[in-house]
Amino acid sequence: MDKQLSFLIEIDKLKSVLRKSPLIDQSRRENSAEHSWHLALYAMVLSGEAAPEVNIDRVIRMLLIHDIVEIDAGDHPIHESPDTEDQQRLEQEAAKRIFGLLPLGLGKELLDLWLEFEAGESHDAVFAKSLDRFQPLIHNVETGGGTWIEADVTKNQVKQRYGGPIAKGSARLWSKAEKLVDDHFE
Amino acid sequence: MDKQLSFLIEIDKLKSVLRKSPLIDQSRRENSAEHSWHLALYAMVLSGEAAPEVNIDRVIRMLLIHDIVEIDAGDHPIHESPDTEDQQRLEQEAAKRIFGLLPLGLGKELLDLWLEFEAGESHDAVFAKSLDRFQPLIHNVETGGGTWIEADVTKNQVKQRYGGPIAKGSARLWSKAEKLVDDHFE
Repeated sequence: MDKQLSFLIEIDKLKSVLRKSPLIDQSRRENSAEHSWHLALYAMVLSGEAAPEVNIDRVIRMLLIHDIVEIDAGDHPIHESPDTEDQQRLEQEAAKRIFGLLPLGLGKELLDLWLEFEAGESHDAVFAKSLDRFQPLIHNVETGGGTWIEADVTKNQVKQRYGGPIAKGSARLWSKAEKLVDDHFE
Repeated sequence: MDKQLSFLIEIDKLKSVLRKSPLIDQSRRENSAEHSWHLALYAMVLSGEAAPEVNIDRVIRMLLIHDIVEIDAGDHPIHESPDTEDQQRLEQEAAKRIFGLLPLGLGKELLDLWLEFEAGESHDAVFAKSLDRFQPLIHNVETGGGTWIEADVTKNQVKQRYGGPIAKGSARLWSKAEKLVDDHFE
């Protein structure tokens, strides 16, 4: 059990990785641990928007671990530089180190789940990535613009950066999100 | 989808409910949202310690929602006053209000899951409650005493307050925890 405990103690650090997104009450920025919790709840209550092939319990597990690599690699905000090979290499190394704290079989299981999320190809990963884009959009709408104002992005840029991943996971989710974006920019 | 979004926006407030427990790096107190995330990971990686009847995916869902009532009712630290009827009434009302934001069927499903956790009788609830007691014990051990020092509790009080719920969920988990407590108080 010592290996599991080392892992559980190590991931406490995710509570200190700050994202760009604000809390909805704007009291501070969101951290990646509470963001992961919130996303798991998004999966639970929006499961009706997922394709029939999606296994929501796997999506929940995927979302709970999807940002753990940020302990080593940091958060990578959507409105800053695009994904670089360097960033991807850092994240792969982080995944190997952190999931490698676990007993072999369990560590491999979580590493594979994270790799599946990163690849974004399976039904479960596509829906998980859709929610990962949908939740910060809601925070921006609810805070009068949030990171869109800070990064000075236009309505078209917002639609471009969020629309693809959200719509791929659920057309209805994007239809709702697009309406919120339109209302916001009006 | 508007009802699901109202719920998801409302529960953002759980990120501002502070617990007594410190983060392991002692930089600040833990909030109830990131605590819930951490517990879900405890369930994922310690599933091997659960009784064979336990459904870990249900335990994960239970842990993700178990503290949502604190948005209205506040956190209720283990080393302060015992559970009062007033506190329980507040939490029941909070559960009805917050899960009541969801569409009827979904809201009832989550309310029932929360009530099952509170009752602490089913296999899943017993294991969930065991982890909910085990995680803060790890934080106290890792921070040289944490809330045990603040509340000035003795080794026997610690064993009394943590031992029952942890051992009920997993004898092996309590055997590990008891050793950590003994080492700490030495």
